[in-house]
Amino acid sequence: MTICGREPEQVDTARRRLGFARGVTDWRLLLDDDRVEVLDDCAPNHLHPEPVVAAAARGKHVFCEKPLATSAGAARAMWVAAERAGIVHMCGFNFRFFPAIRRAREMLEAGDLGELTHFRARFLASSALSDDQRWTWRFRRATAGTGALGDLGSHLIDLARYLVGEPTSVAGILRTFVPERDGGLVDVDDAFLGAVEFEGGALGTLEASRVAGRRSNTCAFEVDGTRGSLGFDGERLNELEVHRERKATVRMEVTSPRDPFMELWWPSPGHALGWGDSFTHEMHHLLCAVRGDGVVAPHGADFADGYRCAEVCDAISRSAVSGQRERVAYRELDDQHGGDASSTKR
Amino acid sequence: MTICGREPEQVDTARRRLGFARGVTDWRLLLDDDRVEVLDDCAPNHLHPEPVVAAAARGKHVFCEKPLATSAGAARAMWVAAERAGIVHMCGFNFRFFPAIRRAREMLEAGDLGELTHFRARFLASSALSDDQRWTWRFRRATAGTGALGDLGSHLIDLARYLVGEPTSVAGILRTFVPERDGGLVDVDDAFLGAVEFEGGALGTLEASRVAGRRSNTCAFEVDGTRGSLGFDGERLNELEVHRERKATVRMEVTSPRDPFMELWWPSPGHALGWGDSFTHEMHHLLCAVRGDGVVAPHGADFADGYRCAEVCDAISRSAVSGQRERVAYRELDDQHGGDASSTKR
Amino acid sequence: MTICGREPEQVDTARRRLGFARGVTDWRLLLDDDRVEVLDDCAPNHLHPEPVVAAAARGKHVFCEKPLATSAGAARAMWVAAERAGIVHMCGFNFRFFPAIRRAREMLEAGDLGELTHFRARFLASSALSDDQRWTWRFRRATAGTGALGDLGSHLIDLARYLVGEPTSVAGILRTFVPERDGGLVDVDDAFLGAVEFEGGALGTLEASRVAGRRSNTCAFEVDGTRGSLGFDGERLNELEVHRERKATVRMEVTSPRDPFMELWWPSPGHALGWGDSFTHEMHHLLCAVRGDGVVAPHGADFADGYRCAEVCDAISRSAVSGQRERVAYRELDDQHGGDASSTKR
Amino acid sequence: MTICGREPEQVDTARRRLGFARGVTDWRLLLDDDRVEVLDDCAPNHLHPEPVVAAAARGKHVFCEKPLATSAGAARAMWVAAERAGIVHMCGFNFRFFPAIRRAREMLEAGDLGELTHFRARFLASSALSDDQRWTWRFRRATAGTGALGDLGSHLIDLARYLVGEPTSVAGILRTFVPERDGGLVDVDDAFLGAVEFEGGALGTLEASRVAGRRSNTCAFEVDGTRGSLGFDGERLNELEVHRERKATVRMEVTSPRDPFMELWWPSPGHALGWGDSFTHEMHHLLCAVRGDGVVAPHGADFADGYRCAEVCDAISRSAVSGQRERVAYRELDDQHGGDASSTKR
Repeated sequence: MTICGREPEQVDTARRRLGFARGVTDWRLLLDDDRVEVLDDCAPNHLHPEPVVAAAARGKHVFCEKPLATSAGAARAMWVAAERAGIVHMCGFNFRFFPAIRRAREMLEAGDLGELTHFRARFLASSALSDDQRWTWRFRRATAGTGALGDLGSHLIDLARYLVGEPTSVAGILRTFVPERDGGLVDVDDAFLGAVEFEGGALGTLEASRVAGRRSNTCAFEVDGTRGSLGFDGERLNELEVHRERKATVRMEVTSPRDPFMELWWPSPGHALGWGDSFTHEMHHLLCAVRGDGVVAPHGADFADGYRCAEVCDAISRSAVSGQRERVAYRELDDQHGGDASSTKR
Repeated sequence: MTICGREPEQVDTARRRLGFARGVTDWRLLLDDDRVEVLDDCAPNHLHPEPVVAAAARGKHVFCEKPLATSAGAARAMWVAAERAGIVHMCGFNFRFFPAIRRAREMLEAGDLGELTHFRARFLASSALSDDQRWTWRFRRATAGTGALGDLGSHLIDLARYLVGEPTSVAGILRTFVPERDGGLVDVDDAFLGAVEFEGGALGTLEASRVAGRRSNTCAFEVDGTRGSLGFDGERLNELEVHRERKATVRMEVTSPRDPFMELWWPSPGHALGWGDSFTHEMHHLLCAVRGDGVVAPHGADFADGYRCAEVCDAISRSAVSGQRERVAYRELDDQHGGDASSTKR
Repeated sequence: MTICGREPEQVDTARRRLGFARGVTDWRLLLDDDRVEVLDDCAPNHLHPEPVVAAAARGKHVFCEKPLATSAGAARAMWVAAERAGIVHMCGFNFRFFPAIRRAREMLEAGDLGELTHFRARFLASSALSDDQRWTWRFRRATAGTGALGDLGSHLIDLARYLVGEPTSVAGILRTFVPERDGGLVDVDDAFLGAVEFEGGALGTLEASRVAGRRSNTCAFEVDGTRGSLGFDGERLNELEVHRERKATVRMEVTSPRDPFMELWWPSPGHALGWGDSFTHEMHHLLCAVRGDGVVAPHGADFADGYRCAEVCDAISRSAVSGQRERVAYRELDDQHGGDASSTKR
Repeated sequence: MTICGREPEQVDTARRRLGFARGVTDWRLLLDDDRVEVLDDCAPNHLHPEPVVAAAARGKHVFCEKPLATSAGAARAMWVAAERAGIVHMCGFNFRFFPAIRRAREMLEAGDLGELTHFRARFLASSALSDDQRWTWRFRRATAGTGALGDLGSHLIDLARYLVGEPTSVAGILRTFVPERDGGLVDVDDAFLGAVEFEGGALGTLEASRVAGRRSNTCAFEVDGTRGSLGFDGERLNELEVHRERKATVRMEVTSPRDPFMELWWPSPGHALGWGDSFTHEMHHLLCAVRGDGVVAPHGADFADGYRCAEVCDAISRSAVSGQRERVAYRELDDQHGGDASSTKR
């Protein structure tokens, strides 16, 4: 395996520490190397499209971190390129690889909650309030696209789509609370709100923030339906709360041998997984697709998911400017025009 | 004390069970009775304005359940009448009378959380999903004004105003999931969402529902600021969660002798209060105002608060129709025109 | 109703504040007053036997705070006197009157947990660590009998008996951590431990403390059986945790109209009760017995329960001295000898 | 690296799956192999002493799973052999390698809780109640030594010693609830209780069970002192509860870059660790000792800790038989006699 980065010394340090065989400082070298079968792009957001599209063109499978790109247009181009190349493509929405969230999906698919009425999700951090936080690519539109929306909110949007279905309209607000940092201008949002309508009739609230008090990394959501509710809180990621009787909250620990992913772990229940284990599951899923039938969806997010998430982000951004609820319109693979769809008002 | 209701037998049963001295079936008799100093109107929403305005005109103090009226216009008329009569007036937002919420207000006033960035609140119930739930006045616009918005959401709006400040704009969605019940048409919302901007710059999400799974009565909120966060959950109403250090959540039990309202209770800490105790505190507050200087605000909600809450409700309802973010405009006591203010678009 | 106390001024203040009709400073006057039907003795522990036995002799019903007396012998005398007089007698174990605990008892009686294997309970406070805490009757053997054992531990012993059954042997440790206070000598325990065997085969751990950190008043227990577990924590007294499936913890809010005691409260679920409400239920239970068939048990604790609890306390105290597991032996009503039973070693 | 087991096929399967270079079916071959520097003995308890003592004699470092042996005598022999050989020795008490528990130790060492008054710990499982559970070496005295006591309870005893100090006396109860399984006789305990006195004056309760309802693997403890309390629950292993003010419970998430062990993980806080990560830390600790100064204690458990834990287990077993509180006596390295110490009554 080969690791790639910009600074030779840092690349070498990381290579030795993490056990990579080789290190390079130009990603194009990876494409020329026949031993490389899969490209994993975890560079800043604006550095996703070019390497990924080029790798696809060379027939290499691609894994790309979220958000897929800094705009829906660029994300769609990646999806189109990957599909045309016929490679395996996957977008790094790792929350799908926690047992509790897979279990939630299974319950929802089975109709356990009845007709869905509500989804509410929040991803709360405080990184932008820390004096130690320097001005990085995450604070600039040119490199990040958006701020809390794309970085944290994209996880929520992906979960909404994975668990509830497609958003049809959004009303959004973006806000930059700390406009300057370290001499650099912050031109992305520190926080966003979204009020969402789903195609099945459910209502959703989405919120992500980098200015939420002293919270470090809270991703939580609930789904309500006509027959029950469920809830997940990333601070306690082995648990799923389920309500199906009035006044009874079931806290399920999703760590028994029959739970999703657990067949690969301990023989006895009650042993917690951690954040890092979601990446193990994610990579296992990717490599199974690469070695198997090439199918990533529905439990892994592929580039179609990455693109659709970007359309929702764009609609939220448009609504923040227009003050109007905006329609979410997805372009299909063979759609030649499309641009207008996404500007259609509800 | 005199109790009033429509059905003589039921009035008599209630009178005896609850220990009232007298019972009547026409509220006008209460106004003619000099022994009655305070009118407590807990009738359905559309029966608030007439008795309250009439009582004020007779110089009686008035307590009125929330929401104050079925529209901002009617609520404002009650406020104007009460102010002109110089009586004590109070609106039944009893959440203000839980120790944890009073303590939250004190912390926010002291600036403990820094500049506020977020408020999020939800009031989740499932009454509209129960087959036992009959078609009552709560499901009709003529008698209730709105549904989940006015019944449950008004509590959230009042808490937002009490804790964070005045909303300046809202984007709202209303939805009726169960349009018919018991042969009666439901023409109010079962659920609403609101995305709120506050005058101090904070962002808010509000949500109330009668169709949220099997939840029975969950009212919860969080406030985030640049220096910390706090959270309240009505299912555990003696507790306040406070975050002021990274990764440390302080669960305060607000039941020690120095906590709000506790001077009237147990000599030792750690003994929980219940839902009913909030009404005891509320009535104590009202009677102190009646016997004292007549001042209900800021810790009690007076009719100005009841009216302002109704303006926010109206703006959410307008936005649900227009698809646009709507400005919240308050009319002052001596404002002669006003109607147009509330229709101003942002 | 008449209130009785030692200091005329304090009695009068309390009488007016609490709404009693009359106040006296000699409890014997209560016995001479035909209007007094029920004596409620909430004086210090050593002042329980004489007034209670005298009241019973005059045919008055008696309610007595826990622990019933400062020794099993004195407690038994109260029980015998009450039974002989044929009056209603009740001991103030108010935990039995929380809905969650009544519900726990119902589940256990129905066999929902299978054969019981474990009971563990702790009552943790820190009053003896507070510099404000003066030397009161609670710190002296002559007036209190024991310390944490009788004051806090008696609640746990009563719960053990109510929920699991009769203890047959105990190994106990008593410890005084703060031997002097305010110039007064503390000759009772600040903390005790008990390891218990129950007649059905279950094992139990009991612990109470006045020197547990900064805890104010935590009473919690769990019961485990072959088919499930349940847990209660007095800090969240409206909740009962139930485990009947591997890895699923059900948190039941015991506040719906069908829950114990709730028929007297709110029409809709989800409204919490408080500490004070347990006394309302307790007094309601007592008065129903007085006006009805005179039966307090099994859901109320009568003097038989108060006496048996005292036998367990005495066995724990004996074990703390002997270093041996001690047998718990109960004397029956007509037992003329008895003393030796309780000293029988296992 | 070489893996060793009894069945050639299973060894080969495991070897390939887990990435070992070689597999053998006789542990003696490991000792003859100069490439093997460290022996990790995770065989059943009765198979600890012989390989470990032999490996030490050959100068190999040894890691041995807990409990170190089936009796204090055998455990002491392992400790003596390891010390004489001058090798690095470590016993697998992996709970010490959770960040929250290391943090707890640091707080206690710093005196944050004042003088310690209480320790209570429980390890609750239900494996013996499962019909799927076959009769294995864990249910037989000859192979396991004890049941819940040695398997689960040894973790609690080690935590007690790590956090509070040395036990001086114990009163214990052992109980076998399911005496037969699969045709095999169960001659070890399914559950034990221990009431402990510590040398610093604190009191402790210990309890472990394999028959606790449907619980799968709950290890939890609390420590109380004169200035505060702390609590850990293995179901939420990234959290530490701390009480230092009356009525305020601080839930610390022990996942920030400054927390124990976290320097090796994520750059940002709020990302949970799992059960498996404790073993990573444990092995890292061992290998640092092997490559460094050879010192495992105080944060790793060495064989002295493994031996002392076994003495406490033995004292609990003795007390269960005698019905008396038993003294815990440790023999030093050079103690030639010793046996009598452990039978000394308190």
